[in-house]
Amino acid sequence: MVLRLNINDARFEDQFKALLSGKREVSEDVDQIVRDILERVRTEGDKAVLDYTARFDRLQAESMAELTVSAAEIDAALAKVPQATLDALQLAHDRIHAHHARQMPKDDRYTDPIGVELGSLWTAVEAVGIYVPGGTASYPSSVLMNAVPAKVAGVERIVMVVPSPDGVLNPLVLAAARIAGVTEIYRIGGAQAVAALAYGTQTIAPVAKIVGPGNAFVAAAKRRVFGTVGIDMIAGPSEVLILADSGNNADWLAADLLAQAEHDTAAQSILITDSEDLASQVEAAVEAQLKTLPREDVARASWQDYGAIILVDDLEAAMPLANRIAPEHLELAVADPEALLKKVRNAGAVFLGHYTPEAIGDYVGGSNHVLPTARSARFSSGLSVLEFVKRTSILKCNADNLRQLGPAAIALGESEGLSAHARSVSIRLNL
Amino acid sequence: MVLRLNINDARFEDQFKALLSGKREVSEDVDQIVRDILERVRTEGDKAVLDYTARFDRLQAESMAELTVSAAEIDAALAKVPQATLDALQLAHDRIHAHHARQMPKDDRYTDPIGVELGSLWTAVEAVGIYVPGGTASYPSSVLMNAVPAKVAGVERIVMVVPSPDGVLNPLVLAAARIAGVTEIYRIGGAQAVAALAYGTQTIAPVAKIVGPGNAFVAAAKRRVFGTVGIDMIAGPSEVLILADSGNNADWLAADLLAQAEHDTAAQSILITDSEDLASQVEAAVEAQLKTLPREDVARASWQDYGAIILVDDLEAAMPLANRIAPEHLELAVADPEALLKKVRNAGAVFLGHYTPEAIGDYVGGSNHVLPTARSARFSSGLSVLEFVKRTSILKCNADNLRQLGPAAIALGESEGLSAHARSVSIRLNL
Repeated sequence: MVLRLNINDARFEDQFKALLSGKREVSEDVDQIVRDILERVRTEGDKAVLDYTARFDRLQAESMAELTVSAAEIDAALAKVPQATLDALQLAHDRIHAHHARQMPKDDRYTDPIGVELGSLWTAVEAVGIYVPGGTASYPSSVLMNAVPAKVAGVERIVMVVPSPDGVLNPLVLAAARIAGVTEIYRIGGAQAVAALAYGTQTIAPVAKIVGPGNAFVAAAKRRVFGTVGIDMIAGPSEVLILADSGNNADWLAADLLAQAEHDTAAQSILITDSEDLASQVEAAVEAQLKTLPREDVARASWQDYGAIILVDDLEAAMPLANRIAPEHLELAVADPEALLKKVRNAGAVFLGHYTPEAIGDYVGGSNHVLPTARSARFSSGLSVLEFVKRTSILKCNADNLRQLGPAAIALGESEGLSAHARSVSIRLNL
Repeated sequence: MVLRLNINDARFEDQFKALLSGKREVSEDVDQIVRDILERVRTEGDKAVLDYTARFDRLQAESMAELTVSAAEIDAALAKVPQATLDALQLAHDRIHAHHARQMPKDDRYTDPIGVELGSLWTAVEAVGIYVPGGTASYPSSVLMNAVPAKVAGVERIVMVVPSPDGVLNPLVLAAARIAGVTEIYRIGGAQAVAALAYGTQTIAPVAKIVGPGNAFVAAAKRRVFGTVGIDMIAGPSEVLILADSGNNADWLAADLLAQAEHDTAAQSILITDSEDLASQVEAAVEAQLKTLPREDVARASWQDYGAIILVDDLEAAMPLANRIAPEHLELAVADPEALLKKVRNAGAVFLGHYTPEAIGDYVGGSNHVLPTARSARFSSGLSVLEFVKRTSILKCNADNLRQLGPAAIALGESEGLSAHARSVSIRLNL
């Protein structure tokens, strides 16, 4: 039995609040260990990276050269990947590239009514590190989603780090890196890889920003190096919220709920519907499909522990609930999704209608699958080209402009007790 | 004597690296104290806020109502501010508003060549908290710089917190809040104010994002609540880099260097010039002006400890140095600033020519004065409207689109071992 709530229940607000505030992640306290790793890599460089890689990934290497993935190694990996999979990766790449190219911000240089020149100039971050997890969570699609926006932005150096525990590296990840235009690859991971990217070593030049998902050690390391370099968000377990009217195929919705649930036992799948019949059909379909799923254990745990079905009278009136949940993924599986879309305030990505399962967005839709989790869509956005560029403000006054604006600047500087600020203006005006 | 480097010196690269990596901030370890404050406010709400305010700000209040700034209190504050200062604030507001209005991103909804509908929709963050320091660093200009972009973005609730140690509140800060359209003001500060904004209390509804500068306690609290809410950057001490050719008035440049230095003993002012004569003139002018500066002690400490003059042969060839410094403020005090501007890669804001002292940008230029410090212009930007909006991705396939894209999504899902992802597509295609 999955949690079922009804908006007309007297206890609903309390139950909904509990659902919203429920913690799905056990935060491991690895901060002390991570601090030591960062400090050793910062001071010792390559040697520390080699030591930690031997210890944590059981991968002995004499030098960083051995941990550097060569072009020949990528060629060999590509030869192992079935052509159909390569074609699928290329299609995904091309669609992601096309979509993200539209996000590139434009420079804005203008002269205001009194003649002051202002502007905003955008430049790419010079070097970016992309963290790719090893093992089963080593997803080629994530390589594309992180590297392509950087490439579109114009980042010159895109450095991928990917641990290869016991020497095992997913050839698809190397294929995706080649397709996306990654410029350097090191088979290292964990906090030591984050430190190498942030501080640099004898072999690895430092980057300016680090993106990509990772385990608790990687997340803690990213938090700690933030400031020395930029980081992307710290991603939590994945989530989907489906809003569905009675005109749905219950099997399709069940498949969508399970596609989230199979990610992680801490993933969350929620269905909001105005049809009690559909709710029961979907619940039964989930149960039936679970039994045939290779990752049944993971998906079942997620669905039982964090899944929920919420019954409402009216889907449009239920939109405030969706906005409070602020889901990473929102499916509007209704006859008129555009009407509901108008009421969406907080969501990472919205999938409209019956033929847009969320998995299309994970791979080939073109939009990014790195999206805000854990209600952070209230204040943040998915990964985009904007995360790989930065804006420089431009200001240019002539003597006339300064005469016009100067007295106000002097007044404010003096009012804040900053006389040297005021003087830097008055001295130019002979005041 | 201020530090002087010469690019032709054999030791230059080492000296420059030392200048770049020099720490200017002593990081106070207040994390444990802050953790306790956050936890108490989270669980006890108003009561904890009242207790901490009594203890840290020496301000006894029976209820949060007493700590809520009323419209009448703002009216009274406004009546105390000289009209010229109010006019200056209004001018600053209007220019900041006009500049930031150009930053508002546009929704992008389009249909791709195969008929898939995609898009990016921008919505405002619903509620934002603005932290304003108390005491001498309580700057009305900062209120404008933080609140106006939020207002332009369309944020409905703008909640200002400002501590009033011993009950003292700067009337200019209230005036700026009124002009900027702040919707709620509480006279609270420190980690307890950050906690109240992030978690909410009985009186204060929680916000989704917190911006604004503060002391070590505020910075540590912001780092800790990050994730529950969004935060802006953690700002470090202010900096200016001036690139100057021989055609400069040394007194003007000295005034600009000191305008930075007077902020904070940890502020940094650097001059790069191709003229040894100018270097010496500026150094002498700084010395002369220091003696007449009300904040002489602060500015002198900053200049002596962190100031520097770097001699180069050719300013254009020296641009890589400027980009490595990645200054918060960059003045191009040269005959042809546009030529140098083309080579700027990393800078928070650039001030062009001889008549654009940085202080104009602090107050009335129109661009934001909240800018990336401590070399973070390599990967981040100044505060803008973009920090108060978020983007939702839109994806809409019809049955035909799904038939075209589905097989690639299925192939990638299977290749990643995510069968339920693949099934959510195949089930719709009867595969």
